[in-house]
Amino acid sequence: MVHPFDPLSAAEISLVSKIVKDEYVDQNVILRVVTLSEPAKTGIMPYLEAENASMPLPRPPPRCALVQYYLDSINNFWEAQVGIDAGKILNREHLAGRHSYTDAVEMQRAEVACLADPRIQAELKAMELPEDAVVCVEPWTYAPDGMEDMTKRFVMCYFYMRIGSHLDSNHYAYPLDLCAEMSGDREVLKIIRLPSRDAERADFEAAGKSRKFDRRKIHTTSEYHPDLVGKTRDTTKPYIVRQPEGPSFSTQGNLLTWEKWRLRVGFNYREGLTLHDISYDGRKLFYRLSLSEMFVPYGDGRAPYPRKAAFDLGSDGAGVNANNLQLGCDCLGHIKYFDTYSHTTAGDPIKVPNVVCCHEIDDGILWKHTNYRTGNAVVARARTLVLQTIITVSNYEYIFAFHLNQAGAVSYEVRATGILSTSPIDIGHSVPYGQVVAPGVMAPYHQHLFSLRIDPAIDGFKNSLAVEESNAMPLDDPKVHNPFGVGYTTTQTVSETEGALDLDISKGRVFKILNESVLNPINGLPVGYQLVPHPSQMLLAHPSSFHAKRSEFGAHALWVTRYRDGELYAGGKHTMQSAGGEGISSWIQERKEKAEETGVRNEDIVIWHTFGTTHNPRIEDWPVMPCEKMLVTLKPVNFFGGNPGIDVKGSRQEDNKSVLVEDEACCAVKSVRPNL
Amino acid sequence: MVHPFDPLSAAEISLVSKIVKDEYVDQNVILRVVTLSEPAKTGIMPYLEAENASMPLPRPPPRCALVQYYLDSINNFWEAQVGIDAGKILNREHLAGRHSYTDAVEMQRAEVACLADPRIQAELKAMELPEDAVVCVEPWTYAPDGMEDMTKRFVMCYFYMRIGSHLDSNHYAYPLDLCAEMSGDREVLKIIRLPSRDAERADFEAAGKSRKFDRRKIHTTSEYHPDLVGKTRDTTKPYIVRQPEGPSFSTQGNLLTWEKWRLRVGFNYREGLTLHDISYDGRKLFYRLSLSEMFVPYGDGRAPYPRKAAFDLGSDGAGVNANNLQLGCDCLGHIKYFDTYSHTTAGDPIKVPNVVCCHEIDDGILWKHTNYRTGNAVVARARTLVLQTIITVSNYEYIFAFHLNQAGAVSYEVRATGILSTSPIDIGHSVPYGQVVAPGVMAPYHQHLFSLRIDPAIDGFKNSLAVEESNAMPLDDPKVHNPFGVGYTTTQTVSETEGALDLDISKGRVFKILNESVLNPINGLPVGYQLVPHPSQMLLAHPSSFHAKRSEFGAHALWVTRYRDGELYAGGKHTMQSAGGEGISSWIQERKEKAEETGVRNEDIVIWHTFGTTHNPRIEDWPVMPCEKMLVTLKPVNFFGGNPGIDVKGSRQEDNKSVLVEDEACCAVKSVRPNL
Repeated sequence: MVHPFDPLSAAEISLVSKIVKDEYVDQNVILRVVTLSEPAKTGIMPYLEAENASMPLPRPPPRCALVQYYLDSINNFWEAQVGIDAGKILNREHLAGRHSYTDAVEMQRAEVACLADPRIQAELKAMELPEDAVVCVEPWTYAPDGMEDMTKRFVMCYFYMRIGSHLDSNHYAYPLDLCAEMSGDREVLKIIRLPSRDAERADFEAAGKSRKFDRRKIHTTSEYHPDLVGKTRDTTKPYIVRQPEGPSFSTQGNLLTWEKWRLRVGFNYREGLTLHDISYDGRKLFYRLSLSEMFVPYGDGRAPYPRKAAFDLGSDGAGVNANNLQLGCDCLGHIKYFDTYSHTTAGDPIKVPNVVCCHEIDDGILWKHTNYRTGNAVVARARTLVLQTIITVSNYEYIFAFHLNQAGAVSYEVRATGILSTSPIDIGHSVPYGQVVAPGVMAPYHQHLFSLRIDPAIDGFKNSLAVEESNAMPLDDPKVHNPFGVGYTTTQTVSETEGALDLDISKGRVFKILNESVLNPINGLPVGYQLVPHPSQMLLAHPSSFHAKRSEFGAHALWVTRYRDGELYAGGKHTMQSAGGEGISSWIQERKEKAEETGVRNEDIVIWHTFGTTHNPRIEDWPVMPCEKMLVTLKPVNFFGGNPGIDVKGSRQEDNKSVLVEDEACCAVKSVRPNL
Repeated sequence: MVHPFDPLSAAEISLVSKIVKDEYVDQNVILRVVTLSEPAKTGIMPYLEAENASMPLPRPPPRCALVQYYLDSINNFWEAQVGIDAGKILNREHLAGRHSYTDAVEMQRAEVACLADPRIQAELKAMELPEDAVVCVEPWTYAPDGMEDMTKRFVMCYFYMRIGSHLDSNHYAYPLDLCAEMSGDREVLKIIRLPSRDAERADFEAAGKSRKFDRRKIHTTSEYHPDLVGKTRDTTKPYIVRQPEGPSFSTQGNLLTWEKWRLRVGFNYREGLTLHDISYDGRKLFYRLSLSEMFVPYGDGRAPYPRKAAFDLGSDGAGVNANNLQLGCDCLGHIKYFDTYSHTTAGDPIKVPNVVCCHEIDDGILWKHTNYRTGNAVVARARTLVLQTIITVSNYEYIFAFHLNQAGAVSYEVRATGILSTSPIDIGHSVPYGQVVAPGVMAPYHQHLFSLRIDPAIDGFKNSLAVEESNAMPLDDPKVHNPFGVGYTTTQTVSETEGALDLDISKGRVFKILNESVLNPINGLPVGYQLVPHPSQMLLAHPSSFHAKRSEFGAHALWVTRYRDGELYAGGKHTMQSAGGEGISSWIQERKEKAEETGVRNEDIVIWHTFGTTHNPRIEDWPVMPCEKMLVTLKPVNFFGGNPGIDVKGSRQEDNKSVLVEDEACCAVKSVRPNL
């Protein structure tokens, strides 16, 4: 049985595509997006209430699809809502001046067309590349810099080469100082010679000027593929996870239950993995958890590099770039995979396997106490459920995972890995906005800014956001009893209207999502969940820059808005070549100006957390960077009657079957020479 | 063969104790500390150099012990350096006015003496406790509040009770409003009735006034022992780690090697686990890593609670309070345990087993890249070596662990668990500096402040500390090329003299330990290790308070000092009833005043990182709190020629033997009723 939150099935994709194509029998319909249009929240509430109470289900809300398509040309971009049960387009909109996200097909075609251009061939020839060099073009979306008309579509092509016959040789090791600006229909508009030393200007009319490739840049230390990396370690012995009774989770379609948790797994082309209708022990916690957007602006201010600023969700798509996860590689233990359906531009469904994996990990100790009076220790181990998806966006990889624990906490972990985006630099030179990581290879400074969207339902849909600070009690206020100067108390401020908040570590600032109508029976405080943020530097680009205007969420660590159906993307709905004025800050401002409802106290609210990393590369991030981890946690605060994991069974050797390592078994250390 | 860093053997403890006792044949020598006196750094350097180079070893520095002891009485406290080879006391000092750390024997004797006092008995009788109540006394060290002469030793006794016959019933669930101030020789000096509602003063002459115990406080929800907690979960299925070829680490005595890491495991009564002479792939990284101190001040300003402020290392001892770790409970997989030797007050050695465990964990993905041109994914899993120790300090547990990874990073993880320290509160009342967690049970706000001591040896002993910030480039400076407003650069400031530094997330502040004399051959930058701090609120107590004076390290997140032998404890050497003026800030100030060497650039330096948590309890922290994790990482920055884990073998199903969960195998979810 289809659940209202289930992604579109293959049959639904076919049906929806046919409905749309039948509307345009004389035109070429190029389907860009065919995805579930999630039901309005008020529409689905009665259904979810009944479902969670195991009551007879009311009729589900009508099932709809969101469709985006070109008609004949990329300059004729449309969006439609299609009623699946109704079998028709419910409404449609011409997205004039907007652009669809990019995809591998566009990129590959751009690469081919760019390479075929005789001017490009002449440039490459002038470089006198090594005989066994293979030129690779890396197409990028064009982030506005004010130099072109953004109602037209552009593709930027950066040039690299690999040396030798191995197809997985790392071409990012050889950035060439050539770049091409292409039109959306794959015409080379400008040939650009990239700057190759500090403060140098790019040459935007470079034809015929390419310099000879400096062969001193040729090196062998930038490979990562095991065929090329030389000797790999043989010291890491196998480590196998056994679950003789199987995993502790259960699934039925996209419904997942595990250790008092119950939720629905969602997946779409843009956000990738989403979680829906999340409850613990029968109590509602979150309506929806998702990565809303991510923005990767580069800090190299020389043209054309300000055009490097990627919205990896809005302009690339976390879902369409999800890896096909492999058993025994991307996770250990007993693994359940979720598949999804994508589609061709003609609307034919394509099964995409293993885009999400679900498995358990052991996370050390959940809680422990030793009673020193009796010597008795009670220790509960922490089992964690991981729902993981991994995306590849050209050079970079992101590993996104929700972690559920047995004490009612849910965390969102991001690991950034993959290959740095690189630019050419002359041997012997350096720049103050990037790092040389190999001969001739400069990895520019950049930021990764994520927006985590938290749609809470803490014991119901009417919630509030509170900020708590810990403050020393005053020393000399006669109304305050603090004779020894050691007292401290907390202040709590509840947000009344939509807006942004910042972190402040020095004040011990803590963010709580509260249901002020439900009081904990033990201490009379509102039930809540605390957001444990990932403290991060916010966007560095100047507020007047396109980067800042386009990524409004990057200005503050926390945002609170009143819930609106469809308001899912902190950077705006259409980020591809967007020029600003349509993200979270703009929504808030517009609603204020229009005197719309902006109250967020005891209302259906959404919390948006901006976090990330200012990534100034180190050599150790090259050629593939070790994962950089970021973690955001939501944990109960006065929600339960005590530690919700207190009933986790004590850890016992008879279950865990650990193995004692005897001294003799591990004495292979090379012996130290005796004293003289 | 004994290594200069090895803790004292049983025979050495016996010998040293005999040497000291033989000096005082007519006196009762009560041995408080018999531990290794680590060799002077300059003395051991040639030895370590030779050892690491596998060259013939020079004669090791003479082996010494540090001994602290009472002569006849606790008011006659001494410290001596004993030459083990020399067989004699090398020097000794009368520690007049100072106090030794406490221990279980002192605490248990205080408890017995306190309970035996007839005035206490009369107080308890007046309370009319339930018939099956068992009174428990919780002795605490006395943190100075200016009310008593700190040259005398005191013990504070707080009163609790448990109900029923189960010895592991949680007595912290019943804090009684009685307290006793005792002398060091166990005489009850004052009987104190604790405040029981906000701003109420304690009664320091309470004899005969105890109120009847309010039986409305009796409840059943504060238990954690499986016998008492009611139904435990049966949903968590077994999870077993198998290492068919054994672990990947090797030990020889306290020498540990694993995946290019090489280090020596140390352990002492005060700091517990320490790491020495740490190198990676033959290159020196750290001379010593240790937890220097931790301070737990409580934020309840009402007397006598300002006396609750524990130095868990200096006044209790992480080593003496280390748990005997149990196979299959405290860790999974193949576990190697390290034992240590403690001693009786007579100097007889006592073997203390399993104080440190060593095992490997799988930490998900170390790095991954998928070449979208070929579709080939290369993924390396992260194996991590964990060296863990767990301490119980009365109510609280701390899990301390060093994590080594395959990409050259070492992390220090702290997990705080155990039971909140509780105070009585009248039913229906609340206080602004604590939280009610059960009827009549108030858990006061408090902080946990840790000082991690990092004694670096980044490619040698002369190192520097640099602070790097990421700053937007100016918009309108003609000397700067930032036409699009998106550029950013970094500034780096190297500390020249001893002092403190603060975090600043908004500036992307990053701390690097550099060797400015060794340049990375690829980019010419100094080799270094970056400190990734745990961002934390610093001490809240007023600078004029005893709490602040005693825990100088709690004022700033980072300190840098010039290395001095024996300068190990950021809160001062003798924290027991210390009154301030002897921690890290005082050292720096004194040396400045004395015009001693305080330069820290290209010198042998020590970095001290203060981190922790402002712990305002939530109900979910009760009765045993789920682990709160803190993490500090040291990772290479331009130290290697690339990702040092690039040679980790790709992850393969044939090694990892994961199991695919088929849909049928996990469909036990209660079926959803069909549509109407």
